[in-house]
Amino acid sequence: TLRLRVFDLNCWAIRYLSKRYQERVRLIGDMLRQEGFDLVLLQEVWSERDYHDLKAKLGGCYPFSHYFRSGVIGSGLCVFSRFPILDTLLYQYSLNGYPYMLQHGDWFCGKSVGLVIIKISGIVFNIYVTHLHAEYCREKDAYLSHRLVQAWELAQFIRHTSKAADVVLLGGDLNMHPEDVGIRLLRSWTGLQDAFTEAMHFEGCEGGCTLIPNNCFTVKTELLPFPLGIRIDYILYKAVSSFVVKCEVLKTTTGTAPGMDIPFSDHEAVMATLHIRRQGQAVGANLGTAEPMLADVVTEARTEVSVGLRAAQQQRYSTGRMAVLALLLLLLQAVAALGVLAGLAAGQPFPTLSFSLLAFLAIGVLLLATGLHLFHTIEVKMLQGTEEQMRMALRALQE
Amino acid sequence: TLRLRVFDLNCWAIRYLSKRYQERVRLIGDMLRQEGFDLVLLQEVWSERDYHDLKAKLGGCYPFSHYFRSGVIGSGLCVFSRFPILDTLLYQYSLNGYPYMLQHGDWFCGKSVGLVIIKISGIVFNIYVTHLHAEYCREKDAYLSHRLVQAWELAQFIRHTSKAADVVLLGGDLNMHPEDVGIRLLRSWTGLQDAFTEAMHFEGCEGGCTLIPNNCFTVKTELLPFPLGIRIDYILYKAVSSFVVKCEVLKTTTGTAPGMDIPFSDHEAVMATLHIRRQGQAVGANLGTAEPMLADVVTEARTEVSVGLRAAQQQRYSTGRMAVLALLLLLLQAVAALGVLAGLAAGQPFPTLSFSLLAFLAIGVLLLATGLHLFHTIEVKMLQGTEEQMRMALRALQE
Repeated sequence: TLRLRVFDLNCWAIRYLSKRYQERVRLIGDMLRQEGFDLVLLQEVWSERDYHDLKAKLGGCYPFSHYFRSGVIGSGLCVFSRFPILDTLLYQYSLNGYPYMLQHGDWFCGKSVGLVIIKISGIVFNIYVTHLHAEYCREKDAYLSHRLVQAWELAQFIRHTSKAADVVLLGGDLNMHPEDVGIRLLRSWTGLQDAFTEAMHFEGCEGGCTLIPNNCFTVKTELLPFPLGIRIDYILYKAVSSFVVKCEVLKTTTGTAPGMDIPFSDHEAVMATLHIRRQGQAVGANLGTAEPMLADVVTEARTEVSVGLRAAQQQRYSTGRMAVLALLLLLLQAVAALGVLAGLAAGQPFPTLSFSLLAFLAIGVLLLATGLHLFHTIEVKMLQGTEEQMRMALRALQE
Repeated sequence: TLRLRVFDLNCWAIRYLSKRYQERVRLIGDMLRQEGFDLVLLQEVWSERDYHDLKAKLGGCYPFSHYFRSGVIGSGLCVFSRFPILDTLLYQYSLNGYPYMLQHGDWFCGKSVGLVIIKISGIVFNIYVTHLHAEYCREKDAYLSHRLVQAWELAQFIRHTSKAADVVLLGGDLNMHPEDVGIRLLRSWTGLQDAFTEAMHFEGCEGGCTLIPNNCFTVKTELLPFPLGIRIDYILYKAVSSFVVKCEVLKTTTGTAPGMDIPFSDHEAVMATLHIRRQGQAVGANLGTAEPMLADVVTEARTEVSVGLRAAQQQRYSTGRMAVLALLLLLLQAVAALGVLAGLAAGQPFPTLSFSLLAFLAIGVLLLATGLHLFHTIEVKMLQGTEEQMRMALRALQE
C-alpha cells in the first residue's frame, strides 16, 4: 500500500505580464516547500529562470525535477518529485493555434505533453503533465478542432507509452469542461479516471471548479455564464496490471492563499491524495468506457475535426488565391516597367513613388499569403491525419 | 516459428523533380506486387496521390497500409502490410534543418518517425519507419547536431513506445554511415541489431551499400571518397521478452532493376528475411551494448550536440543584433520624417523615393531577422533539452 500526494497548478507565471507575478511565484515555492507533496506538476512556468529559482528553493524536499523545453517560449511544463526521475520524453502537439493570432500567443508556446517515469517501492509510475490550447470564446470556439487533435494525440501518446507502467497519472490544464467531447474522448480512449468524480472526500470550490469568480485574477466577464466557475484543471489516473488506485481526498484552493491577500494564480490548484494497492489477481488493461459508448465519443470528435478541416481547407484556398493575385499584380507591374524601359510608352506614365510602393505592397502580400498558405496546408494535413486515425479506431472498435 | 520478409526503400518520388519518376513508381509497385513481401516500409513517397496509386495497385497482396502525414509536404513515410495494422502513432522530430535552406528542403518535409503495430500469430510487432535529415557535406556537416537530436529522439521514442512489443523493427533511410556516432547511439541506446551485420547470408552490393556509384541516379561526385558507395539505409531489429529474432537472408538491389534499364530509385532497396522463434525462458530486455561503452557513445553524441548548440547560440545572437539594428534604422528614419513634418528642416532634405525604399528595406530586414531569431531560439532550446536528457542518461548509467 502506497499513499501519494499530488499537486497540480497552472501558475500563470508570465514575466512582465502576469499580475503580481514575482510575489506569487515566491508564494507557490513557499507553500510547496511547506506542504511537502510527493509530486508537483506545474504549467505556465514560462521562464526557465523561474524554474531554476523554484528548483533551488525546493531542492530540499523535492530533490528531483525536470523542465520540458519546446517552442519559442518553452512548454511551461515542469515536474518536481520526491522520488528519482528515471526517464523523460516530450511530445509536441502537431497543431496549436495560429502564429498570426499574436494576442492569443498559444502557437509560440509549443504546447506539449511531458512524460516522466518514476518508480516508488517497485511500482512504475508514468506521470504526464500537459497544457492544451486555451478556449478564448466558448460560443464560437475557433480552436476546437486544434484542441481535439491535441486531446487525441495526448490519448494516443499515453496509450502507446504507458504499456509498461503500473500506474498512469495525468495532471494539467486541459482547457476543457468535464462534459466536453475532448475530455470524454481522452478519458474513454485511455481509460483514465477523474480524481474529482472518484474522490471519497472532497474539499474546495463547489463542483471542483478551478477558474472561479472569487479569484481576483480571473476575468469576470468570461465567467458570467458560469456563476460557480468552471473546472478545466484535472488530475486523472488509472492503474494497469495488478494495481488498484483510489482517490482518498481531493482538494482545490479557493481563491486567496491562506493568510495572504492574493491567490497563487488565476487558476486554483488541484491536490489529490491517491492510495495505491497491489491486487491479488492481475486484471487486463481495460478501457474505462463500454465500447459502444466509446465509438459514439470518437464519432462525435471526428465530426468536430471534420468541421475544422473544412474551415482549414477554406483558409488554405483563400490564402493561396491571395498569393496568386499578388503574383499577378507583380507580373503586371514588371510588364509595365519593362514596357517603359523598352521605350514603348512615351515619357513616365506612372509616378515612380506610388509605383514602387505598390510593388513593395504586392511583394509583402505575396510573402505573407504564401506563408499562411503553407501553414494552412500543414493544418489541413494534420486534421486529415487525425480524422483518418479516428476512422481507423472506429473500424477497429466495430470489428 | 515465424518467417517475415521485410522490404525497405527510399523511393525518391518527388513529383516533377525526380528523374523518370512515374516510370519508377510503377516499377516499384509491380515489383512489390510480384515479390509479395510481408511488410513494406517506404520513404520519400512525397505525394499522397502516389501513395493512393500504390495502395490501389497493391490492395490484393498488401490489404493494410498507412500513410503518415506531417509538415508542409508530408512525411513521405508509408507502410504496406499483409497483416492488419492495429494502431499507429507519428512523432515529429523537434529539429529538422532550416526553413531558409530552400535548396535542401528537409525542413519542409516534417521529418518524423512513424509507428505501426501489427500482431502476427500472437506476436506483437512494433514497426518503425523513419527518414532522418540528409547529410549534404560530410566534411563540414552543418546538420550533424540536428541529425543527432533526431537519432536521440528516435531512440527515446522507440524505447518508450515498445515496452509491450515482442519484436521491434526499424527500417529507413538514417542518412548515417554504420560507424557514425548517431547510429552507434541509436543502436546502443535501444539495443537494436543491424540486419546487415547479423545476417547469416548476404546478397547484394559490397558492404551492404545502399547509395552506390553503379546507380545511374546517384551524384557521382558525392561518392568520390567512397568507391564502393555508402550504407545509409537500414533494417534494425530486436526481440524483447521471450523471443529470438535472427536475420536469415539480407539482400540489396544492385543498381539497375532486373530486366530494365533504370534502378527503382537513387537508393538501393534493403530486403531482410527474419526468423522469429519463441524461446523457452523469458529473458529481460537488455541493452545491446555493455554499459561503459554506452556511456562513451552518449558522451560523444553529447559533445557534438554541444558544438551545435554553440553555433545555434551564435546565430541566435547575430539575428537578434540584426533585428535591433534594423529597428534602430527605422526609428532614425521616423525621427527624420517627423522632423520634416514638424517643419524643422527647410524643404525636402531627402529624395522621397530612396527614403521610402530604405524604410521598406529596414522593415523587411526587421521581419526576416526577427523570424530567424525566433527560429534559432527554438533551435537553442531543443539542443539544450537534448543535451540535458543525455546528461541525465549518463548520470543514470553511472549510478
